[in-house]
Amino acid sequence: MTAAVRGGSEGPQAGGGDGQEPITAAAVATQVGGVLVGDGSIEVRGIAPLDRAGPNQLSFLAHLRYGQWFATSRAGVVLISPELAGLTGAPSTRIVVDNPVDAMVALLARFHRQEPRSEGVHPSAVIASDVRLGLGVTIDPFVVIGQGAVIGDGSWISAQAVIGAGSVLGKDVRVHASAVVYPFTELGDRVILHAGARVGREGFGFVPQATGVVRIPHAGRCILEHDVEVGANSCIDRGSVDDTIIGAGTKIDNLVHIAHNVRVGRGCFFASQAAVAGSVRIGDGVQIGGQVGIGGHVSIGTRANLAGGAGVIGNVPAGETWSGYPARPHRDHLRASAAIARLAKIVRPLEQLVSQPVAANPANADASGDVS
Amino acid sequence: MTAAVRGGSEGPQAGGGDGQEPITAAAVATQVGGVLVGDGSIEVRGIAPLDRAGPNQLSFLAHLRYGQWFATSRAGVVLISPELAGLTGAPSTRIVVDNPVDAMVALLARFHRQEPRSEGVHPSAVIASDVRLGLGVTIDPFVVIGQGAVIGDGSWISAQAVIGAGSVLGKDVRVHASAVVYPFTELGDRVILHAGARVGREGFGFVPQATGVVRIPHAGRCILEHDVEVGANSCIDRGSVDDTIIGAGTKIDNLVHIAHNVRVGRGCFFASQAAVAGSVRIGDGVQIGGQVGIGGHVSIGTRANLAGGAGVIGNVPAGETWSGYPARPHRDHLRASAAIARLAKIVRPLEQLVSQPVAANPANADASGDVS
Amino acid sequence: MTAAVRGGSEGPQAGGGDGQEPITAAAVATQVGGVLVGDGSIEVRGIAPLDRAGPNQLSFLAHLRYGQWFATSRAGVVLISPELAGLTGAPSTRIVVDNPVDAMVALLARFHRQEPRSEGVHPSAVIASDVRLGLGVTIDPFVVIGQGAVIGDGSWISAQAVIGAGSVLGKDVRVHASAVVYPFTELGDRVILHAGARVGREGFGFVPQATGVVRIPHAGRCILEHDVEVGANSCIDRGSVDDTIIGAGTKIDNLVHIAHNVRVGRGCFFASQAAVAGSVRIGDGVQIGGQVGIGGHVSIGTRANLAGGAGVIGNVPAGETWSGYPARPHRDHLRASAAIARLAKIVRPLEQLVSQPVAANPANADASGDVS
Repeated sequence: MTAAVRGGSEGPQAGGGDGQEPITAAAVATQVGGVLVGDGSIEVRGIAPLDRAGPNQLSFLAHLRYGQWFATSRAGVVLISPELAGLTGAPSTRIVVDNPVDAMVALLARFHRQEPRSEGVHPSAVIASDVRLGLGVTIDPFVVIGQGAVIGDGSWISAQAVIGAGSVLGKDVRVHASAVVYPFTELGDRVILHAGARVGREGFGFVPQATGVVRIPHAGRCILEHDVEVGANSCIDRGSVDDTIIGAGTKIDNLVHIAHNVRVGRGCFFASQAAVAGSVRIGDGVQIGGQVGIGGHVSIGTRANLAGGAGVIGNVPAGETWSGYPARPHRDHLRASAAIARLAKIVRPLEQLVSQPVAANPANADASGDVS
Repeated sequence: MTAAVRGGSEGPQAGGGDGQEPITAAAVATQVGGVLVGDGSIEVRGIAPLDRAGPNQLSFLAHLRYGQWFATSRAGVVLISPELAGLTGAPSTRIVVDNPVDAMVALLARFHRQEPRSEGVHPSAVIASDVRLGLGVTIDPFVVIGQGAVIGDGSWISAQAVIGAGSVLGKDVRVHASAVVYPFTELGDRVILHAGARVGREGFGFVPQATGVVRIPHAGRCILEHDVEVGANSCIDRGSVDDTIIGAGTKIDNLVHIAHNVRVGRGCFFASQAAVAGSVRIGDGVQIGGQVGIGGHVSIGTRANLAGGAGVIGNVPAGETWSGYPARPHRDHLRASAAIARLAKIVRPLEQLVSQPVAANPANADASGDVS
Repeated sequence: MTAAVRGGSEGPQAGGGDGQEPITAAAVATQVGGVLVGDGSIEVRGIAPLDRAGPNQLSFLAHLRYGQWFATSRAGVVLISPELAGLTGAPSTRIVVDNPVDAMVALLARFHRQEPRSEGVHPSAVIASDVRLGLGVTIDPFVVIGQGAVIGDGSWISAQAVIGAGSVLGKDVRVHASAVVYPFTELGDRVILHAGARVGREGFGFVPQATGVVRIPHAGRCILEHDVEVGANSCIDRGSVDDTIIGAGTKIDNLVHIAHNVRVGRGCFFASQAAVAGSVRIGDGVQIGGQVGIGGHVSIGTRANLAGGAGVIGNVPAGETWSGYPARPHRDHLRASAAIARLAKIVRPLEQLVSQPVAANPANADASGDVS
């Protein structure tokens, strides 16, 4: 048996997209409300960037800066904006549309093979007798659901996932393979947990006692409100005294950590590998870049923006963009970075300036060199 | 069916804690050895911070700085320190106790719903014929235990966990759902592995050979001593030539990586997303902050403290606090950060000073601007 | 029942290695093509560093700087290089060999206990009716394989792993426990996925629309070419328009994140917790250190080297070593770090210099202190 996988990177890939049902250029034009130029009978089966698209793939051109790729592209059909519609290029079949990117996003769903979904409960699943399952629920093989859990209508729990005792899941929740919902966790409607997400773990809290270090019992809840999405292998701990709450519509990427007692507002975005320490408060609409770290007990104001890699150790005002480590306003960080680069070139003369005799530089007389 | 989960962040949450059995104020006072002031018959069912607690919840006041929350708190009962006992505040039922925080921690266990534990081995588990199971062991659904493994008395292996062949687990070990113990790993008594922890993987070691890159066989062990706790989705690799050993009582948070041949002492703490490269030596009682990175082959002295985000590329002496990237003593790092902020404001005049004619600044005569 | 695990770190460990079948020094000498000096009948059962090896273990000495360990080592047999063969040391049985490290690596396989492998498909596995299984495939308990998936000859899928619908796996692929291959993912021959790896997840892409934020459908593929290795709990997302491709022979450590549309060349190495944002292009033979972050849409040239903790926000030329945050050429970064340390000592005199009357320092006349 031969599996059809390439062994190397020999030149451009055959193309992106995985659609299988072909669609004609004329049909695409109708679907996106565009104007067809050229042969409407050409069929495409997938979607790809201009430089990699082949004759049976659709591509798009929204900016002149990609014009060089357009000149030589092998794409069968190209979505193109009105102002670029007359550009010289290899693809002769074009669909002129006001916003080619939006049109492309709409078409992506067309070329997106859906994962097949079974109906009902797989016989291998182990579901406690008092679990309440909603209507139209799918429970895949080897799922385990603990005592007293509630699964809302239309939810889909994939293979190997574990839903702990006493957890409450809303409607149309999607729990991907191998995710774990610890006991007593609450998920709103349309929450998505990707593979390996861990929500509701007892937080990382210990107190020293005479007999040694003792774990703090975590009686606080872990609540993910409606439309929250949690990436693969991300972890959200439950609270100790307080609750951990992720606000409605917040989206979390892979490998993110959110500690106990953290409150996250609505509509926030967490990029991959961000980490939030205990009892942090985050307002609505905050954007958090990849690998950002936020220290314990600080507050991040509404619609603040933390650049990738920022290390936050104090409160961030609403609406501001901060960066760097320790994080500060982005403009200050840029200024400091530029300053370092420039000063690094003149360290020796600066040292010599300040080491001149006191007579020549009276200002040095009381210079201790200490900045504190 | 309606799942009882809120969809938004409409105002303060109803409260933390998940206790269900009510307890009277008088009973709480007895339990924590405090003095009851007010109505001892008031019942509480949960626990919450002052600003979010409701009439059937317990809260606490240990510092005057939270006095403003106390003034308006809706908490039914408040644990309060003797010096604050007479403070004006909304809650009329108070329990005066020397250390309200300690009392609260003790009470948390009271309000902590325990995950129900089954007895014995679930019939779905796949356990090799020569596995030795101790007394009072719980094996949940779909657990797999490989040939020759040993599970100590009282241990509890949750759903979907995999215990590799030849592994040895001590007494009262707790392996949460979906954790994987690779073959030939050794866990001491009372070790806790949270969901998705991976211990004993072959480390990331390769050697170039004529035929290409070859994996180094990892014959070293992965040993977690008594009372070690490993967070959700954290990874600890086995050794190549040497062993990887995590010392007794060390606690590790979520998403931490510890590479091959690393030796960690007793009683250390690793916050989330810390990463330790190969062959590092870490003494006893070391505190490692979130997202700390430690480069290969360095040594961290006993009771050293690495601040969150530190990037360690050299040895850290015992007892010192280091921070920054590259990490250095915390005081030096603060000094450098302050220096940058101050110098950034005078870059141009400094450049102009050193660019003056040589006659005016003789020290510049040999200034190359090179700092190396 | 007593599990044989130590409870503390009482002194040096008994030794690394887990071999069980003893081998004589004479046999080792033959195997590595070395010259035996001393008693060839001594048997060893394991392997360890000089400072921890015991009488029935093998060790090695390749550099004079470890001579002090050699002087007191209890190792039964030592592999030693010709130039050090006459060194005074405790171990009397030596095997002189040109490259002791290479010899040790070759011997490690000898002392490496192999995980036992079952044959065929475990009866508990749930495999869709149209899955194509190659010859000599091992499917362990509770594996789930979706519709239309293809598993190449000789592949081994461990317990609890999930292979999504439509995925294609090459020959001799090794999927460790609890790993998840999302639907429609392609893995080449000899690909290794460690425990908890997640490949082919829909990437983290959203667009704002009138009704709120909408997920971008991800129609791009996720392709891992031949001989790619993915560490425990690492995540690789599928593409949106474009594909995500990991080039042949690339090795990825634990807890790494690679976002949608990323193209990685052949023979790259990613150390633990590295993160690559969307649409990044990485050439062949690139080395990426631990906790490196690479921002979206940048290009990393062939054989570039990114030091641990680097935060990359722009293109990196081929062959260069970059470090720091934001990353720049390593030499520049070192220069800047040194400059900061030196300037921090003279901040006050520098401030005083520039604050002198204009008459004394005419250059300051137009100094605004603004670096932008």
